[in-house]
Amino acid sequence: MGRQADAPTRRAALGFGVGMAGLAAAPAVAEAAAGPRRADVIVVGAGFAGLTAARELRAAGHSVAVLEADDRVGGRTKPGQIAGEVVDLGGQWVGPTQTRLLALAKAMGVAVYPQYATGKNLIDIAGHRAAYQGEIPALEPSAMAEFAQVVGKIEALSAAAPMPDPWTAPGAEALDAQTIESWLLANAETPAVRSAIRLIVRAVLSSEASQVSMLAFAAYASAAGSFSELIATRGGAQDAVFEGGVWQLAAKMAADLGPAVTLGAPAVSIAQDDAGVTVSTPKGDWRGRYVVVTAPPPLASRIAYAPALPAMRDGLTQRMPLGCVIKVHIAYARPFWREQGLTGLVLSDRTEFGPWFDHSPQDGSHGALVGFYDGGPAQAWADRSPDERKTQTLADIARYFGEAAQSPTGYLEEVWTRAPLHRGGYVCVPGPGVLTAFGPALRAPVGRIHWAGTETAEAWVGYIDGAIRSGERAAAEVGALL
Amino acid sequence: MGRQADAPTRRAALGFGVGMAGLAAAPAVAEAAAGPRRADVIVVGAGFAGLTAARELRAAGHSVAVLEADDRVGGRTKPGQIAGEVVDLGGQWVGPTQTRLLALAKAMGVAVYPQYATGKNLIDIAGHRAAYQGEIPALEPSAMAEFAQVVGKIEALSAAAPMPDPWTAPGAEALDAQTIESWLLANAETPAVRSAIRLIVRAVLSSEASQVSMLAFAAYASAAGSFSELIATRGGAQDAVFEGGVWQLAAKMAADLGPAVTLGAPAVSIAQDDAGVTVSTPKGDWRGRYVVVTAPPPLASRIAYAPALPAMRDGLTQRMPLGCVIKVHIAYARPFWREQGLTGLVLSDRTEFGPWFDHSPQDGSHGALVGFYDGGPAQAWADRSPDERKTQTLADIARYFGEAAQSPTGYLEEVWTRAPLHRGGYVCVPGPGVLTAFGPALRAPVGRIHWAGTETAEAWVGYIDGAIRSGERAAAEVGALL
Repeated sequence: MGRQADAPTRRAALGFGVGMAGLAAAPAVAEAAAGPRRADVIVVGAGFAGLTAARELRAAGHSVAVLEADDRVGGRTKPGQIAGEVVDLGGQWVGPTQTRLLALAKAMGVAVYPQYATGKNLIDIAGHRAAYQGEIPALEPSAMAEFAQVVGKIEALSAAAPMPDPWTAPGAEALDAQTIESWLLANAETPAVRSAIRLIVRAVLSSEASQVSMLAFAAYASAAGSFSELIATRGGAQDAVFEGGVWQLAAKMAADLGPAVTLGAPAVSIAQDDAGVTVSTPKGDWRGRYVVVTAPPPLASRIAYAPALPAMRDGLTQRMPLGCVIKVHIAYARPFWREQGLTGLVLSDRTEFGPWFDHSPQDGSHGALVGFYDGGPAQAWADRSPDERKTQTLADIARYFGEAAQSPTGYLEEVWTRAPLHRGGYVCVPGPGVLTAFGPALRAPVGRIHWAGTETAEAWVGYIDGAIRSGERAAAEVGALL
Repeated sequence: MGRQADAPTRRAALGFGVGMAGLAAAPAVAEAAAGPRRADVIVVGAGFAGLTAARELRAAGHSVAVLEADDRVGGRTKPGQIAGEVVDLGGQWVGPTQTRLLALAKAMGVAVYPQYATGKNLIDIAGHRAAYQGEIPALEPSAMAEFAQVVGKIEALSAAAPMPDPWTAPGAEALDAQTIESWLLANAETPAVRSAIRLIVRAVLSSEASQVSMLAFAAYASAAGSFSELIATRGGAQDAVFEGGVWQLAAKMAADLGPAVTLGAPAVSIAQDDAGVTVSTPKGDWRGRYVVVTAPPPLASRIAYAPALPAMRDGLTQRMPLGCVIKVHIAYARPFWREQGLTGLVLSDRTEFGPWFDHSPQDGSHGALVGFYDGGPAQAWADRSPDERKTQTLADIARYFGEAAQSPTGYLEEVWTRAPLHRGGYVCVPGPGVLTAFGPALRAPVGRIHWAGTETAEAWVGYIDGAIRSGERAAAEVGALL
């Protein structure tokens, strides 16, 4: 918690000049007395989904008001500063088929550059340690054939999971009735293959294979194009990063929207009637013709709805927990692992921390790593002290990069899974039996309420690109009604 | 929703004389201005857990304040009236080992009488229809051996699941990593056996076998003593019912507590500091040394906690959805199924509604049935109209009892899964991977917050008896600190 408490200080030092401080000072008391503020559409949440929906609606000539619970925009993206560099404490990467995010960056004049991938990755799974190049994890040689076979099966399930309604596929119920772990035990014999898939699930879904529906996993891969695209660096979801961080795109969108964005205004209730909808917050009420709710299900479930939500939608919000994740940036005097011919990427089943990646600045002025506690390790470590986590993180890195790893010049973490306004990350992950029973409630409007957020995306669910797509979709839905 | 809207009218007609109306009129505004009201212990929730905790604490000489979100006490019990009889729209039955509930009834002077079980039950599973006596479902003869074997395996898993910490058992992780459905497919070949177990899971957990962890199922049975005790009428969890309904026990406890109970006061926030804890509600603030939160996880998760909850506890509340259930009472001029030699109990995989039971009054003045839409059918039917459900219910009953079933003299339902202050019933059911990762947070106090509610019980989890036990435990925990 100590790490979170100093977030405002870090943010204040960033100096993007987008005037965020001014947004926070909404004239709550005076206007509340004068009745609700008004806009055509009220947007709940100022992450990429909400900011995109608001931009699109405004571009179509409608007035908008964006209400954000947190004291900043960006949702599951967030800026931090370490060793003089602005870094992303949340969402960070972009891949070549994430065309909506790439288009936004281009429109905003923000450059991307390739994730560093020169040299060899390290892998240490089921007692077999190796260095390898490229995207295919080098398991022990005897496990490679089965690994390829299992990946092929996952790709086939992914290809057969029709987005955006994977629950309509033939066989969807049977796939949804089992965990990834059950599927894995039935489809892989080799301990190394099982361990590798479990680690990949952790890294991709920030959840344990034992917790996630196999249908949800297949659908998640389908939404990304394929399983391979999820896990790949070059050409996949970790292909490139943003100069100055991705969060600035949210900040720039918010700056364009200006006073239409109100921070520190969590939606407490949403009441709809024949004429419109009223969203109440501690900073007063807003009245619109429609509302777009972008909060992920476990946060949307805290809003009081009048009339009450359909059972299908309320049931969904009880069954889409956010994954568990702690993100860590570590700075060093230089990227010493590069001198060992390493990319910085390590995939190990012997560490609590991991995977991690090279995130050194382009000018080579210092070295940096970025990595995660995901799923089980995040669950186990979120309630420990920052110092305990730091000790564990550095020991885990040192196991592969040597003792130099124990002497960082900077250390910065974000415990998403202990942030009360976020409740976890990266994405909400349904357990078995949820999508087939409640999936249709993901996107189905409820009267004047339309739903957005990366969980509702039709492509790249769980990613910033999916959040943008969902905002575009919701804006189109509502725009057609205005 | 129309069925729920007239609940106050029904309740007003019950005439238990416990003065509930007076409890609702808390002097909110005046006292809020005078600072928080004070008690040694604040109890959030006036179901059986909260009322029991308050009684125990008061008996030990401590002052209490009970805050209830709803406009009545009783939690997942609720009274209704049909054909001149008071019936339970929620929890209803009691079994011989539910000793805490039986003791409460005795202390309150409320009699119990046996669930009617004279004659034959009907079963219709996998195309085989039969009438049978006793507790063992009469599947097609060729399936009986496997059914006995599967039940034996479940009993063994149940016996090996150590309550109250089933996640500590050897093999707990493997059991928790699979759904009941996955376990069933691996342990039963016969369609009739699979269908019977799925129906039993629905009836017992108001969830689908595809949604529930096998460890959670074993633990649930363990908490009841055995799987057989869960499903049995005579000698099991459906052994007896209460004269005048079980809800009156909650009403009587509340009457004893008098003005210590405040209705219509949902806990919005719980803030603790070195000296005590403040619970804020729309009716003002309460200040105590400790707080006992009895709300089930999906409702407790709506409270804002300061400081924030540990990640383990917040994660748990995202992963314990309430089951889905609609309870229906149907009255007839006479119990005509008895004339056919039937008990009234029907277990069928061809109906949406079911199982149902005879619930005719003891004096035989008319006939009555009580039954459920559970799990999948509750999910599918909760958002349809009351008339559609009634048509389906009566058609399902008529399939087995004949056309006379189509002419009820009364019909009364409670859609728990669409009640915003309850969000479902009977109980919160964890999916795979939840108990082993988050289970320890079920009962672990968080500073001055202690947890109760039937989900936290050490025996009879999910039942009224478990709620009482949890209230006793929480009162003992807090009492030892005062």
